[in-house]
Amino acid sequence: MPKLSFKATNMPASPIRKLVPFAEAAKSQGKNVIHLNIGQPDIETPESAKNAIKNTQIEVLEYSHSAGFESYRSGLSNYYAKNDVKVSKDEIIVTTGGSEALLFGFSVALNPGDEVIIPEPFYANYNGFANTTGINIVPVTSKIEDGFALPAIEEFEKKITDKTKAILICNPANPTGYLYTQEELEKLSELIKEKDLFLFADEVYREFCYDGAKPFSVMNLQGVDENVILIDSVSKRYSMCGARIGALISRNKEFMDSAMKFAQARLSPPTYAQIAAEGALDTPQSYFDDVTNEYVARRDIMVDGLNKIKGVNCPKPKGAFYAVAEFPVEDTEHFCQWLLEDFEYEGNTVMMAPLSGFYATKGLGKKEVRIAYVLEKSQLENALTCIEKALKKYPNTTY
Amino acid sequence: MPKLSFKATNMPASPIRKLVPFAEAAKSQGKNVIHLNIGQPDIETPESAKNAIKNTQIEVLEYSHSAGFESYRSGLSNYYAKNDVKVSKDEIIVTTGGSEALLFGFSVALNPGDEVIIPEPFYANYNGFANTTGINIVPVTSKIEDGFALPAIEEFEKKITDKTKAILICNPANPTGYLYTQEELEKLSELIKEKDLFLFADEVYREFCYDGAKPFSVMNLQGVDENVILIDSVSKRYSMCGARIGALISRNKEFMDSAMKFAQARLSPPTYAQIAAEGALDTPQSYFDDVTNEYVARRDIMVDGLNKIKGVNCPKPKGAFYAVAEFPVEDTEHFCQWLLEDFEYEGNTVMMAPLSGFYATKGLGKKEVRIAYVLEKSQLENALTCIEKALKKYPNTTY
Repeated sequence: MPKLSFKATNMPASPIRKLVPFAEAAKSQGKNVIHLNIGQPDIETPESAKNAIKNTQIEVLEYSHSAGFESYRSGLSNYYAKNDVKVSKDEIIVTTGGSEALLFGFSVALNPGDEVIIPEPFYANYNGFANTTGINIVPVTSKIEDGFALPAIEEFEKKITDKTKAILICNPANPTGYLYTQEELEKLSELIKEKDLFLFADEVYREFCYDGAKPFSVMNLQGVDENVILIDSVSKRYSMCGARIGALISRNKEFMDSAMKFAQARLSPPTYAQIAAEGALDTPQSYFDDVTNEYVARRDIMVDGLNKIKGVNCPKPKGAFYAVAEFPVEDTEHFCQWLLEDFEYEGNTVMMAPLSGFYATKGLGKKEVRIAYVLEKSQLENALTCIEKALKKYPNTTY
Repeated sequence: MPKLSFKATNMPASPIRKLVPFAEAAKSQGKNVIHLNIGQPDIETPESAKNAIKNTQIEVLEYSHSAGFESYRSGLSNYYAKNDVKVSKDEIIVTTGGSEALLFGFSVALNPGDEVIIPEPFYANYNGFANTTGINIVPVTSKIEDGFALPAIEEFEKKITDKTKAILICNPANPTGYLYTQEELEKLSELIKEKDLFLFADEVYREFCYDGAKPFSVMNLQGVDENVILIDSVSKRYSMCGARIGALISRNKEFMDSAMKFAQARLSPPTYAQIAAEGALDTPQSYFDDVTNEYVARRDIMVDGLNKIKGVNCPKPKGAFYAVAEFPVEDTEHFCQWLLEDFEYEGNTVMMAPLSGFYATKGLGKKEVRIAYVLEKSQLENALTCIEKALKKYPNTTY
């Protein structure tokens, strides 16, 4: 048979997926697997999104504009205005998920072989998009002892080469839940201005900020309009991951004109999903308030509960719906597999995402896991009980 | 501002789009522009697809399986079986349009710098996908005097270098409407077997075959299961271009395993659109019969009408809903722009796609246009009248 490409050979599998066969085996043994491993919220999609679909009168399901419905882009522009971000509909391209926004962004900004600096641990699928576009990720390590705050700017400077074209952040961050402060972002802003780099910001968890914290968008950084690229998605905001509607946003006209050609080649983003996303714009503030209250309660149960378990350390995140916890074990890949294969408590076990796959630097994150607190509180409590019992039983617990 | 990538600089704009500003200007002058330039059918989307959406009971719009709903893939497998193509659900990855299927396919099969041979004229967006994945298109020219039949195999052989990894065909073809015979495909099959190449076949117009002709799928070529990659889409089949649901299909397990990693990185194809596409599988045969009858009638009006116009030559296609016509002008780009800018007849003018943008070889297709006969018969008749009157009035008509 013909040989496959090196991109095919090098394409990383998601670190979350490695454990899937063990989870399936556990289920087939009758165990109840509590899924803390994936960011698929159980929150209902807003009525306005679902009704928009039910009420649509489409006779011919046509292509939309390649940048997305004009009415939806206008609506998005209003949504951002309410979030203190000023962008016009012409500075927005609607994409098939945040994924496509990032693929377009990487393709337009970076040549194959160019480098993007990303604070690690980072969302593992960035590796896939980098491989797809032939670019290289250069990590700068953030640390659990700092609560995963932005590493010192000097750490970024050390990594800059003549191949560096961009920095990418996720804010609030997957997998750490860390919310960057305005001050941190302004430091980054100075750096990208000085070095003439693009700054990509994945702000898909914008609505999930807690304890009164307000997210600061990179779109509000001063004097870097040509450098800043916003990646967005409705997936988490309205609990509509399956819509596959995202957005690529920038005030850099040349960048957007080029991105439009990539958008035109693939014709249009999905029409039904755009209708749902446009409907979702009418979601009342009470929906977000309820969701925020629910996630704060879940986070507090999960994080406080984890920190009460002997040997576990879990910084309390201010955003998203993930937390990173350090466990008293040598290798969470082994521990997580053991949880599925060899452990149960009252019929339950827990699936978590070992964090090593979220680091680009080999050997890091071996004691850490990502936990998505996207389940009902009673399930989170069962998960905590499991983890506590498991650490007592696991042969390699180090306390 | 930071410099953009060479992919951004080189990304071709669709040849169909160049004339859009002139069409908009014509409309703002009150002209009725008859659109023969785009393949957006006016046929209604099947009821079963639309009802599936109206009746969906989704509460949380979740990600689907990255390869698409299992139930939809099983349904697709049955659909292909009815079309005498045997593929299992595990040999299918549901994609976001045929576009994504081709992007995955190119990424898995070809390294940047590798070459894919494509008979020209070809669907212009292949250029965009080649640029996105960093591969090079090498054209083999098919000719209007042969009705755009497959060029002689020796012409392909001449183009094979150590960079050649694949051949791509579109069958029935956009833009020519040519339907490859089993004999032609078997000749290609021998070549790809001998040279160990991939054969990509874009068969999205499968249902549009006329005059009793039956499409022969590359999936039924013998002894080349490891080489053959099928690209499919529901866009044209069910007149649901806006769904953005396609499929990447192959019996080459290693290829599909790699493609799955690309599919996993982007999480899933759009959920609502999959529901509609699964509903569309229940479309009765009478729908296709009606559509075929309608297109045959449209084709006959259009093609017979064109051939009656002095100096026009239009081979009668057996498939898809496009025809290529040669006009008695030196440059159809100029003629098509003139039609929009300087011509009207009884308030009407016509927009067509100049064919030069569908050739990779510079200078070819300058007298040719692509015509999409996707409009009602009365509109096609008005278009024919316009074209006849226009050629009489156009200052550069060469007869």
